[in-house]
Amino acid sequence: MTTNGSLNRKLRMALCGGGQGSFIGRVHATAAVLDNRAVLVAGALSSNAEKSKASAPDYDIPVARAYGSIHELVEKELALPADQRIDFVSVATPNHTHFEIAKTAAEAGFNVICDKPMTFDLKQAEELAEVVKKSGVVFAVTHNYTGYPLVRQARQMIASGELGEINAIRAFYIQGWLRTRLELSDQKQAAWRTDPKKSGIAGCFGDIATHAYNLARYMTGLLPETISCHLKTFEEGRALDDYGTAIVKFENGALGTVTASQISHGRENDMWIEIDGTKGSLVWRQEEPNAMVVRANGQPHKIYTRDPNAPHMNDMGRAACRLPSGHPEAFFEAFANIYRAAYDAMILRAEGKPFETKDTVYPNIHDGVEGMYFIEQCVASSQQGGSFLPIKHPLARK
Amino acid sequence: MTTNGSLNRKLRMALCGGGQGSFIGRVHATAAVLDNRAVLVAGALSSNAEKSKASAPDYDIPVARAYGSIHELVEKELALPADQRIDFVSVATPNHTHFEIAKTAAEAGFNVICDKPMTFDLKQAEELAEVVKKSGVVFAVTHNYTGYPLVRQARQMIASGELGEINAIRAFYIQGWLRTRLELSDQKQAAWRTDPKKSGIAGCFGDIATHAYNLARYMTGLLPETISCHLKTFEEGRALDDYGTAIVKFENGALGTVTASQISHGRENDMWIEIDGTKGSLVWRQEEPNAMVVRANGQPHKIYTRDPNAPHMNDMGRAACRLPSGHPEAFFEAFANIYRAAYDAMILRAEGKPFETKDTVYPNIHDGVEGMYFIEQCVASSQQGGSFLPIKHPLARK
Amino acid sequence: MTTNGSLNRKLRMALCGGGQGSFIGRVHATAAVLDNRAVLVAGALSSNAEKSKASAPDYDIPVARAYGSIHELVEKELALPADQRIDFVSVATPNHTHFEIAKTAAEAGFNVICDKPMTFDLKQAEELAEVVKKSGVVFAVTHNYTGYPLVRQARQMIASGELGEINAIRAFYIQGWLRTRLELSDQKQAAWRTDPKKSGIAGCFGDIATHAYNLARYMTGLLPETISCHLKTFEEGRALDDYGTAIVKFENGALGTVTASQISHGRENDMWIEIDGTKGSLVWRQEEPNAMVVRANGQPHKIYTRDPNAPHMNDMGRAACRLPSGHPEAFFEAFANIYRAAYDAMILRAEGKPFETKDTVYPNIHDGVEGMYFIEQCVASSQQGGSFLPIKHPLARK
Amino acid sequence: MTTNGSLNRKLRMALCGGGQGSFIGRVHATAAVLDNRAVLVAGALSSNAEKSKASAPDYDIPVARAYGSIHELVEKELALPADQRIDFVSVATPNHTHFEIAKTAAEAGFNVICDKPMTFDLKQAEELAEVVKKSGVVFAVTHNYTGYPLVRQARQMIASGELGEINAIRAFYIQGWLRTRLELSDQKQAAWRTDPKKSGIAGCFGDIATHAYNLARYMTGLLPETISCHLKTFEEGRALDDYGTAIVKFENGALGTVTASQISHGRENDMWIEIDGTKGSLVWRQEEPNAMVVRANGQPHKIYTRDPNAPHMNDMGRAACRLPSGHPEAFFEAFANIYRAAYDAMILRAEGKPFETKDTVYPNIHDGVEGMYFIEQCVASSQQGGSFLPIKHPLARK
Repeated sequence: MTTNGSLNRKLRMALCGGGQGSFIGRVHATAAVLDNRAVLVAGALSSNAEKSKASAPDYDIPVARAYGSIHELVEKELALPADQRIDFVSVATPNHTHFEIAKTAAEAGFNVICDKPMTFDLKQAEELAEVVKKSGVVFAVTHNYTGYPLVRQARQMIASGELGEINAIRAFYIQGWLRTRLELSDQKQAAWRTDPKKSGIAGCFGDIATHAYNLARYMTGLLPETISCHLKTFEEGRALDDYGTAIVKFENGALGTVTASQISHGRENDMWIEIDGTKGSLVWRQEEPNAMVVRANGQPHKIYTRDPNAPHMNDMGRAACRLPSGHPEAFFEAFANIYRAAYDAMILRAEGKPFETKDTVYPNIHDGVEGMYFIEQCVASSQQGGSFLPIKHPLARK
Repeated sequence: MTTNGSLNRKLRMALCGGGQGSFIGRVHATAAVLDNRAVLVAGALSSNAEKSKASAPDYDIPVARAYGSIHELVEKELALPADQRIDFVSVATPNHTHFEIAKTAAEAGFNVICDKPMTFDLKQAEELAEVVKKSGVVFAVTHNYTGYPLVRQARQMIASGELGEINAIRAFYIQGWLRTRLELSDQKQAAWRTDPKKSGIAGCFGDIATHAYNLARYMTGLLPETISCHLKTFEEGRALDDYGTAIVKFENGALGTVTASQISHGRENDMWIEIDGTKGSLVWRQEEPNAMVVRANGQPHKIYTRDPNAPHMNDMGRAACRLPSGHPEAFFEAFANIYRAAYDAMILRAEGKPFETKDTVYPNIHDGVEGMYFIEQCVASSQQGGSFLPIKHPLARK
Repeated sequence: MTTNGSLNRKLRMALCGGGQGSFIGRVHATAAVLDNRAVLVAGALSSNAEKSKASAPDYDIPVARAYGSIHELVEKELALPADQRIDFVSVATPNHTHFEIAKTAAEAGFNVICDKPMTFDLKQAEELAEVVKKSGVVFAVTHNYTGYPLVRQARQMIASGELGEINAIRAFYIQGWLRTRLELSDQKQAAWRTDPKKSGIAGCFGDIATHAYNLARYMTGLLPETISCHLKTFEEGRALDDYGTAIVKFENGALGTVTASQISHGRENDMWIEIDGTKGSLVWRQEEPNAMVVRANGQPHKIYTRDPNAPHMNDMGRAACRLPSGHPEAFFEAFANIYRAAYDAMILRAEGKPFETKDTVYPNIHDGVEGMYFIEQCVASSQQGGSFLPIKHPLARK
Repeated sequence: MTTNGSLNRKLRMALCGGGQGSFIGRVHATAAVLDNRAVLVAGALSSNAEKSKASAPDYDIPVARAYGSIHELVEKELALPADQRIDFVSVATPNHTHFEIAKTAAEAGFNVICDKPMTFDLKQAEELAEVVKKSGVVFAVTHNYTGYPLVRQARQMIASGELGEINAIRAFYIQGWLRTRLELSDQKQAAWRTDPKKSGIAGCFGDIATHAYNLARYMTGLLPETISCHLKTFEEGRALDDYGTAIVKFENGALGTVTASQISHGRENDMWIEIDGTKGSLVWRQEEPNAMVVRANGQPHKIYTRDPNAPHMNDMGRAACRLPSGHPEAFFEAFANIYRAAYDAMILRAEGKPFETKDTVYPNIHDGVEGMYFIEQCVASSQQGGSFLPIKHPLARK
């Protein structure tokens, strides 16, 4: 519950994407203003200028600032006085358009909050990383599940050695909504996600396994070494994978598995992670995000609830809470925590102060590059029958 | 995800309460704007004008519209042009001040969203009901737990007879935070809640049992007849009850129990309800609000998840969802659903159209009166050793 | 895993009841021999001699020792040489026959393990207590839920003060199987349980609320003072209650509630208990008996699992385990723990040594009397509109 | 609850293993007699004749029939009259001794119930299969988890097509008890399990991953094709694996994963399985064995409880229940279900009737061979860096 400190004004946001039928555009718009630290003032809600203007009232955006493209957006916003001009662009469009939008915004000096996967392919990601580095903008990628308070609690617990050396990680993301060829009906979400021209070379693994992998990386900080992957397409005729499993060998000798499905009947958004350390283990589950089980041999199982006042909560965990324990927080609030952390950096930048860019609280350009590398190597490994391929990217977050 | 329709502008909100140390003020402010249908433009954040102005930036309220009292607020706002003036006042102050604020606002023609318990005592509640009736304003009481999608789903299921005739209700609200005399330390929340001058004649039963009772009434629609109650104060020296249990006999012969505690170690905000009908039963739990168990003999237990796309969800359940299933919604979103439903009525009023005032989707002045009657009769019954007293108020919602 | 020590032989058992259609007879027979410490050698499996003999092979009982009545059983067994004669009689017949069987067996000097409710009415119970006292036999009542390891763990935790002073108890036993008039069909279990001539003056409260009440008494050791009860019959035409709730005031000021139902759709055998002490609270649930949640403010919730090797398990908890943690034990094993504890006493008696008769590990004649008193006072209170009546019996276990 | 039918007598059992410190010997002895269909009359409880005789009273075995070896046992039992002689031998010794015992017993014409893994290596398993085939004895392997009623319910549901074509299987067995070098202390269970001379070439994968793999095979009936495995030893100095994960490709194109751990802090005996079919999915968890979640898109999640009277339970599920729903059954009862099914076959054999030997309800010699093949190929694959190796054995159960 903080204002923007010495900046003493709200940050101004532009939204790219979010037109009719969009799910994630609305989530960005809601999360961005949850703490009243930003205001949505502009947008390129559609690649069609008329549609963009038509959607503007849905977001309370003045029609004059509803643009038909990122280029128009950048041009017109740069033309505005500094005290009206947007501070950042949120990118909530299908994957294949992320790169151009993010690059254009960053090159214009606007901070960027970009949905994942960050780009269409690794090459774009690496190029974007160059752009971001040069431009000096704040760049966040909405691997939103890292925003849950207990995920951050776990991250700090592991970083501080509470679980000891990490030996094993099991990360899962199990869904069922693409069990049928939903993309053949008029379902916008399914259509672009299963279309290699819009989604990229991976389906299930690009859409959700990346989240699970990112979560493992974010929570443990372990550096990966090699990866082996097997992808499957169970729905006949579908162009991309809808199921897969990968094995990750980490530099410290730990063994990880990442399994993702879009064809598991009735499973909604069941991402969970199990982490085994030499001193303790933990399990956290996205669908019941306000509890985390922490175990150690010889002790009762412990349930850590999202409790900002509990002595066993650490700084990162507490800072991500808005409500007392027992008053559940959920998806929107976690998403908003990504924004909140990025805002802190944006304010520092606005004030000309230095800010962390690599090992940030929010997922950043490094995570974005790692995510694209993960997708590329998974697909490549799968095509080679599961060969182990390198997975540690030179731009890895840590 | 809707704009305000033909009203074609955001609703303008004033917040009473919410200064430093307030928990619920922030919740109101956040919930009110979650769907981008309202904007917080004014407030009486403290009963001290300077403190009110000092807190204004926290809520992005112009200092000029941060007032020192509801009277100043009403006077100054009424003096503003209609297109700047607030539409409604949210009351998030300690219980003993609700009445004056709500009455003053309503008499001035402003809609009111009032925290619960609605007033300090029943007499005030009944008087306020008169005022609201005369003024014709929209009046909502934030029995916020009724805003959860699955609670509304259950309400419609029961109303449509899916569970058959309701025979038994077991409602609980179990907390542990007042297990010690927290009020003796510098804890603002504990201090006023245990002070009969601020909280009223009941402690635990006024603060939380009312929620459980309201939930039972809201979900089942059953009219109550008589109530018997036993209140206890387990923490020595505390002026008000911190535990209690009540038995409610309903007009249709159903038997209900309402049990509430503030002294159950480690229990956070564990409100749950179990409802038994002749055709089916259900259980819903606030701390895991995205699932509800529906049972019928001879069938597998069914878990209804908050799934706006599921065929088994009904209109009320679906309308209260913002996210797809598996993407959990929680406390803020439920709270915002109270606001959302009240906004619909405010817009009708603003447009001069008729709107429902009794059996509303949101808890209203009738629920507020019932809540105060519940508190009074519980305390009276307990003082008489548990005698059964009337509990059906002439102003009951239904 | 123990033999019978210096007794150096198995105990010999006779089963009364258990003929065709019986559920609980088989449970007794199985539980009694689970640890290989007893052997079933005789029985009065039916009140019809021919039927009794016909059922004998089902239990591997020699036909010659399958009797038509307890009287025949006692006469014939007493006529056998001491080294063949039974040691104890298990009573698994409908309620109205318990008294005669148990009395006859005890008077003959045979130990008794009697199903609950112990007798048809309180008068019988008190008379039986006299008989048992005079005879000096071991007498156990199968309030079998007290046999669960974590129930015993909790009992010792509370006795040793780990939870502090107990303030509140909420005990529940929620079933749904009598939601319809099952007794009108050919269902033996339902028929006698709803027949006042066989079941006694209470239905649901005699059959299951007694278990919940007994569990509360057993776990906390608190002495009760007065009770108020409301019973309901929701299935039209049924002669006995099928739902009810009671309030118990304990001598130390604690407040308890006991709620039981047989008409809650789809609820199977959902007995659970919540206990609040000044230092901690706990929750245990029969349907998931291998875990118990122990909570204290400011600490993570703790899940105690049934783990004979865990440092936090106490002697009583450990002694009731047969398997390592994670290898679930359940209903049969808990039932067998009643037998196991009774066997220890029987062996002491057989060896002429003194043995505890009042505050035993297994539920005993005192619990049986208390159970009947509970039923009588609940029915009487309910008939008087919920008056508080005395509930502490002179023969109370403690 | 059945006698042994026309056989009209109990089956006579000999136990090999089960001396002091044994866990599984006691489990066999208890499970074998749970339904009163068998009696333990002989044993080779230890490889030391004196120790064997010393342990005999613990099992109520006459000292004269407590032997020092399987050879002595076979010789002496064969010398007894047919109506006293044992019917079967249960093998509950460390892995390296299974082969000789089982082979000797089978060659002598005694039925065998053998613990898993069936033998020390694959060669022994294949040889044993020959012996069993020639001898015509009943041979069961106690992959005991297949005895849970809901596992069998699932097996029949899948066999009958209720879940459609199976696409994906995720099987897990996560423990934590070997997180430290427990084998260095005086812990018998840990000592032999981590000793390659007694346990065989695999540790964790031989001890528990085999169970998970067997469960997947048993429940789905899918025939496997190839396997890739990665084994790890996280506790320094330990000779065998304590963690691993394998990928299984099935003939029908399904993808399976099997993950097992002995080093996950606080995880007790957490075996679970998730199965995805084209029409539905299910999840079952050993630690909460009385419930199984069955899901299909667009429907509420369904919880199947172990309910012998529920219409949705099938024949296999019902037949494995002893108690009504809500009265939990657990480890012992599931174990006993293996015995129960084997007894049915033993009776047929005793009566000279034909009996199924391949696709039996109980795990059999084919499962035993498959288990050993699984271990060998997992170890080989892991040594080759995870190469895919054949896994379908000519003797596969189906």
